[in-house]
Amino acid sequence: MHLTLYADSQFTSPYVLSSYVALLEKELRFEMRTVNLEEREQLRAPYRELALTARVPCLKHADFYLTESSAIVEYVEEMFPAPQYRALFPADVQQRGRARQIQAWLRSDLGALRQERSTWNVFYEPTDKPLSQAAQDAADKLLAAAERLLQGPNLFGDWCIADTEFAVMLSRLVKNGDPVPEKVRAYVEHQWQRPSLQAWLKNITAASGKE
Amino acid sequence: MHLTLYADSQFTSPYVLSSYVALLEKELRFEMRTVNLEEREQLRAPYRELALTARVPCLKHADFYLTESSAIVEYVEEMFPAPQYRALFPADVQQRGRARQIQAWLRSDLGALRQERSTWNVFYEPTDKPLSQAAQDAADKLLAAAERLLQGPNLFGDWCIADTEFAVMLSRLVKNGDPVPEKVRAYVEHQWQRPSLQAWLKNITAASGKE
Repeated sequence: MHLTLYADSQFTSPYVLSSYVALLEKELRFEMRTVNLEEREQLRAPYRELALTARVPCLKHADFYLTESSAIVEYVEEMFPAPQYRALFPADVQQRGRARQIQAWLRSDLGALRQERSTWNVFYEPTDKPLSQAAQDAADKLLAAAERLLQGPNLFGDWCIADTEFAVMLSRLVKNGDPVPEKVRAYVEHQWQRPSLQAWLKNITAASGKE
Repeated sequence: MHLTLYADSQFTSPYVLSSYVALLEKELRFEMRTVNLEEREQLRAPYRELALTARVPCLKHADFYLTESSAIVEYVEEMFPAPQYRALFPADVQQRGRARQIQAWLRSDLGALRQERSTWNVFYEPTDKPLSQAAQDAADKLLAAAERLLQGPNLFGDWCIADTEFAVMLSRLVKNGDPVPEKVRAYVEHQWQRPSLQAWLKNITAASGKE
């Protein structure tokens, strides 16, 4: 049952990152292929025919193709379940709910912040451009949630996939020098050291070297 | 373990609708409270303090508050599991993946169509305003996916929550007289008759009567 992950060729998509980390945490062997979004490769055959929603990431598992990172993470968790494989979600149902809430929120809110502090600014080229009011409001909302949610190195005792996603969102502020509370900075730095995220950063280094 | 669902006061949110249908399909007793988004009630205490992301829907279960509809649906499925309660997702892991893919896609893509064929236009006041190019492109993408996914009255044999969500998205075209293939029209009409969605429409009728 061969696994292939389709990624953006610059490795800036936080959604590809999440799927990649999920596969690494499960210690699964997989091949990675890149799709050139700048050249709109995702909108052309064969990718468009294979990936129903014409977006990255896409996980191919044997002859099954699945897009949308939150669906990919759930699929990997169900197909390669704990305890044989490392859990991507907490065991407790309410903590699982909280983890999914964070994942869904990060995908559908805080748009101005995601735009003005892009993952390009996180991974390749920091910016010190002042935030617009809308982006500052989003930053304030994000930090208010962090203040309530963070009480240690992980959200819920053991690491879960929402930790990586939350840390990447918070890194939009941390890595660009925007002011954050010390516990947010410490949380991001802790998550940043996780081997699965470090492996992702090596993809970035390799992509940079090619340019 | 008392359940409360916080809804928008006009009942136009497709995300509140999904959470509402999930609770009804489980045949759970719950209270519904409305939040007046026009008056920005979601951004003020007490709602803002209770609902981490300051959005509707929010499900309160005893003293646990959860926002983000996809997380709510998963929570309800895990807390009130099949076979004791009706399943919200297919049993097959790949079909579950496909259902979640559709849910995630509908929440994060097709923005121009969602704007120009709003749920207000679906539930209260149809429009015949021509679609912009961006919205037409979104409609074409949606219908191309429908062409591939739909082969009968439900996506996967038995009904699942993605059926209701997909039908509501497609209804943005169907209910406003935009051209759709016959099988799309038939699918939407079939899903529309489901008692849980009909119950939602009664909320709309009641809200209309109050205005």
